[in-house]
Amino acid sequence: MFAQIQQDLQILDVNLKQMVGPRHPILSAAAEHLFHSGGKRIRPSIILLVAKATNNQAKLTNEHRRLAEITEIIHTASLLHDDVIDDCNTRRGSGTVNSKFNNKIAVLAGDFLFAQSSWYLANLNNLEVVKIISKVITDFAEGEVAQSVTYFDTSISIDNYVNKSFHKTASLLAASCKASAILSNASQKTQNKFYNYGKHLGLAFQIIDDILDITGDYKNMGKPAGLDLKNGNLTAPLLFALNECPTLHKLVEREFEESGDIQYAIELIKNTNGIQQAKDLAQEHVQASIQNIKYQKNNQSVNDLKLLSHYIINRIT
Amino acid sequence: MFAQIQQDLQILDVNLKQMVGPRHPILSAAAEHLFHSGGKRIRPSIILLVAKATNNQAKLTNEHRRLAEITEIIHTASLLHDDVIDDCNTRRGSGTVNSKFNNKIAVLAGDFLFAQSSWYLANLNNLEVVKIISKVITDFAEGEVAQSVTYFDTSISIDNYVNKSFHKTASLLAASCKASAILSNASQKTQNKFYNYGKHLGLAFQIIDDILDITGDYKNMGKPAGLDLKNGNLTAPLLFALNECPTLHKLVEREFEESGDIQYAIELIKNTNGIQQAKDLAQEHVQASIQNIKYQKNNQSVNDLKLLSHYIINRIT
Repeated sequence: MFAQIQQDLQILDVNLKQMVGPRHPILSAAAEHLFHSGGKRIRPSIILLVAKATNNQAKLTNEHRRLAEITEIIHTASLLHDDVIDDCNTRRGSGTVNSKFNNKIAVLAGDFLFAQSSWYLANLNNLEVVKIISKVITDFAEGEVAQSVTYFDTSISIDNYVNKSFHKTASLLAASCKASAILSNASQKTQNKFYNYGKHLGLAFQIIDDILDITGDYKNMGKPAGLDLKNGNLTAPLLFALNECPTLHKLVEREFEESGDIQYAIELIKNTNGIQQAKDLAQEHVQASIQNIKYQKNNQSVNDLKLLSHYIINRIT
Repeated sequence: MFAQIQQDLQILDVNLKQMVGPRHPILSAAAEHLFHSGGKRIRPSIILLVAKATNNQAKLTNEHRRLAEITEIIHTASLLHDDVIDDCNTRRGSGTVNSKFNNKIAVLAGDFLFAQSSWYLANLNNLEVVKIISKVITDFAEGEVAQSVTYFDTSISIDNYVNKSFHKTASLLAASCKASAILSNASQKTQNKFYNYGKHLGLAFQIIDDILDITGDYKNMGKPAGLDLKNGNLTAPLLFALNECPTLHKLVEREFEESGDIQYAIELIKNTNGIQQAKDLAQEHVQASIQNIKYQKNNQSVNDLKLLSHYIINRIT
């Protein structure tokens, strides 16, 4: 997307393949299957841009590159386990590892990638970075569990939803933005600014993903609409819509079990202000992300990060 | 088992519960379910004894204790995922997490524990220890995959079997023995001796576990006999027995699919020298483990470690 890191993202792709390694064909197949599934590499792009925004002479070090790679590996590992947990059969338009191979391979491949990431992380030789990224993986698991115990629970608040979304998505982005600034030896204040930039961007990203689950079609999303609903994962558009539409309560309470319930719920949500309110919430977080880097030295990388925030929201407008 | 660390193991139990924490009831339930299932705490015992054997005045530091706790957490996490991977419903005589809760909770709880262990590991503030233990988790995943691709493969060699067992079991014990010596500031030579002690002890432990899968009954094992066979995981007793008994080949090739195949295979193995040859292999590794600490200063902890090696083999004699 951004000319200045185009070549760096190609290097990242080459390195990722090498890191997962030819050590085990099935693991490599499972991992490459995901690496190749056309992810937009938004996470590593952000980390590389933060590195360039914070380091002297906008220099990318090997450690910055490795951090971007580690983050992508952790993200991929979490997708592998998510698909097992959510019984998801399609991601980015192609079969998920658990459907194409099986649950066991998906669990194993995820474990392998988490382990590889820990190993590469330790070899960054920066304990502060090890700690901050390790914390993220704990957040993931907690987020997933928090999500699983509130399935089909219509009483959860928007705050609770935002909190889950932090653990699930924003924590990794926040921590890796901060870690990138740490590797640049940026000041504590700058580190925290970039942490908050990543946090709000991550939240916006998740909210928009959740909106697309309701509005999106298979082609744009790479996965069928209403999957969150089906799993009982109640997200912003539905939570806002519930206030306007009592019928939705009934559908959720019977866990969308009758034929056509999902499609009916989607129509009901579209007839409320739920989607608009969710968009507004995402927009607030986009603004908050930009707010945090507003006073950074105005270089190309900071500009690109601002553009990236806008790009996120443009996925739905 | 050993008077000198009895109290330390009680402290470990208390700390383990605290570390998994009250942060999430389901995760805690899943983890405690395992922590309480009467494991013999052999791993932490070994690590505490290595600490006392290597440190000045046989002193246990907080870091040694934390290492023992981390190792037990990693072990528990790997059991959770193993049970999903092996479709195992009983462990140590009680239902496994995946049968009592479900596969999703087992995957999540395992992820959570792996994450917690990474976090506590980073907070030991010793990069060398972080690296050596991170490597173990990679070994786990590789071992599991190596195992899964050789299911029902009668052509695998004993060397291949030993190699798998290293990844699956011995790597953690070897690495944590070495890490314990590192935390005592022991010399490189001593560190390596304890690495090899742990490695051979771990191999002996796995071989004996595999023998018990064939000979053991439900009561002693806490799980049904022949589970490895059923899963196609061909272990030492069967691999040795294959040389003497062509009928076994047939049973393996049809993947024990006919009723009574498992019981028949167990009887066939018992009629060969397979079990004795596997015992001899375990005994070799027990001897090799003791050999590595033979010249250590002869204190109570080293003596206990030697006793522990003998105890392992006595499980089957």
